Amino acid sequence: MTLPSVPVPTPARSAAATQAPPQSPAPARLSLNQETIRQWSLPELVAGCTAAGVRTVGLWREPVQRYGLRKSAQLVAGAGLRVSSLCRGGFFTGTDRAGRAAALDDNRRAVEETAELGADTLVLVSGGLPPGDRDLVGARGRIAEVLCELAPWASAHGVRLGIEALHPMFASDRCVVSTLGQALDLAELFPAEQVGVVADAYHVWWDERLPVDLLRAGKSGRLVSVQVADWVTPLPEGVLLGRGQLGDGCIDLRGFREAVDAAGYRGPVEVEIFQPDLWARDGGDVLREVIDRYRRHVA
Amino acid sequence: MTLPSVPVPTPARSAAATQAPPQSPAPARLSLNQETIRQWSLPELVAGCTAAGVRTVGLWREPVQRYGLRKSAQLVAGAGLRVSSLCRGGFFTGTDRAGRAAALDDNRRAVEETAELGADTLVLVSGGLPPGDRDLVGARGRIAEVLCELAPWASAHGVRLGIEALHPMFASDRCVVSTLGQALDLAELFPAEQVGVVADAYHVWWDERLPVDLLRAGKSGRLVSVQVADWVTPLPEGVLLGRGQLGDGCIDLRGFREAVDAAGYRGPVEVEIFQPDLWARDGGDVLREVIDRYRRHVA
Repeated sequence: MTLPSVPVPTPARSAAATQAPPQSPAPARLSLNQETIRQWSLPELVAGCTAAGVRTVGLWREPVQRYGLRKSAQLVAGAGLRVSSLCRGGFFTGTDRAGRAAALDDNRRAVEETAELGADTLVLVSGGLPPGDRDLVGARGRIAEVLCELAPWASAHGVRLGIEALHPMFASDRCVVSTLGQALDLAELFPAEQVGVVADAYHVWWDERLPVDLLRAGKSGRLVSVQVADWVTPLPEGVLLGRGQLGDGCIDLRGFREAVDAAGYRGPVEVEIFQPDLWARDGGDVLREVIDRYRRHVA
Repeated sequence: MTLPSVPVPTPARSAAATQAPPQSPAPARLSLNQETIRQWSLPELVAGCTAAGVRTVGLWREPVQRYGLRKSAQLVAGAGLRVSSLCRGGFFTGTDRAGRAAALDDNRRAVEETAELGADTLVLVSGGLPPGDRDLVGARGRIAEVLCELAPWASAHGVRLGIEALHPMFASDRCVVSTLGQALDLAELFPAEQVGVVADAYHVWWDERLPVDLLRAGKSGRLVSVQVADWVTPLPEGVLLGRGQLGDGCIDLRGFREAVDAAGYRGPVEVEIFQPDLWARDGGDVLREVIDRYRRHVA
């Protein structure tokens, strides 16, 4: 359930982000997903975002657990930062009951962490096909079954779930929910205040139904998280770490953001890039570039 | 417009395929796409298929041109082999008029080659986004524009075009037609005897609309070519050469073939696998394995 382990070089100057703030505050809606600058510790992330005027962050469970959940919540809230999303729950597609029960338990913990952090949404990556299994329809059905238990429980904890559609190239091994439309079909089994959808431009940009599905999500109050990264080729081996810096690829990111706005979404736009080239650089430099690229290609 | 150049080792015994025919004839509908055993010359392909009882082959323009078009047609017809498809035309998405005119010229030559070979279908891979372009809708529109000229011309030469949907992971650099439904939307602008669609399980297996779109294609007489390969992960760098041998991956290939049958398709099922591991082996061994796997996972 974690990103693969990739060596992260120690940045030359870990506090660099605080030394050279950008010339003007970051765009108000920009949220920085912590994996974009995974070389930063949580305190570095908080310091770097504060210095750069970034007011919102997306967090991941593992680094939060490493730093300590309570400490993380205090650090982030103390700095006045909002948490747009926590990544991630999900992985509901196992065929054995014990595995699904374990997944449900883990997701309950993820809900509690989301509540403690005051995050807007717990992002769900639904899971791929179990080994040797070829039944996509069955796997999608099992997601709905687990959500029947998880969604009301999360709602009782004040946490809304967001089903994320992942690119079809991840359908077998990570997420059998491949389009925003499929994510909405699942979400609509539940009240809108319990289950929404996550629209990540990287995963759904190719889909001609995207504009209509964004409207469908937004107008029904189910668009709970919006993320951006760019699509660049050639894809690397394993394809997971091939996301591009904003503007380096071929996604019409501004058009995507405008479609999201047209659907009535007014929340943060989270920059989530998994890219070893960015991880090898000074975090402050990366954040300045992200802010600049966001202005030029998204805002 | 060609597959990337990958070193192909010289098989230890180039006539090996003729030495150990399988115990029973190959399934009647099995067609061998020539790129699956790209280490074979065209004469080796013809000899190997004949020995193994494979009655249908899918050809590629470049090896046919290298051997000579007329000679290839005579060799294949002389052995009593049928040609299920010629790969490939397309690449219609350029923004400059000169580029599109050149593409149209090249596609007219591809039509002539298809006619000379007596192939059922000229497969079209539509093309990706031009460099720096982010307009998927525009690119899809340009495909239709070129087809308005090419389709009647091909029809006058007795050649039917088949629009192939490629997996969305190829949307930016190879083919902006990402689903069978999109391919059908384009094909339906033209008479069914002029333009159909190609359904390759590898590209469309993840799509929950696939069963309905296969029916739509088959019942309207537009399903002109069916191809199979399996989906295996992790995907290799560049993703093009990651196709898996039948049964090695997670596609329900038998279910796919049954859906194709239910749609009324009665033509060949072409095995098209781009896989360096297969290219490094003795071609006859690979063909025997393909036949065995086809029996166990497709037929």
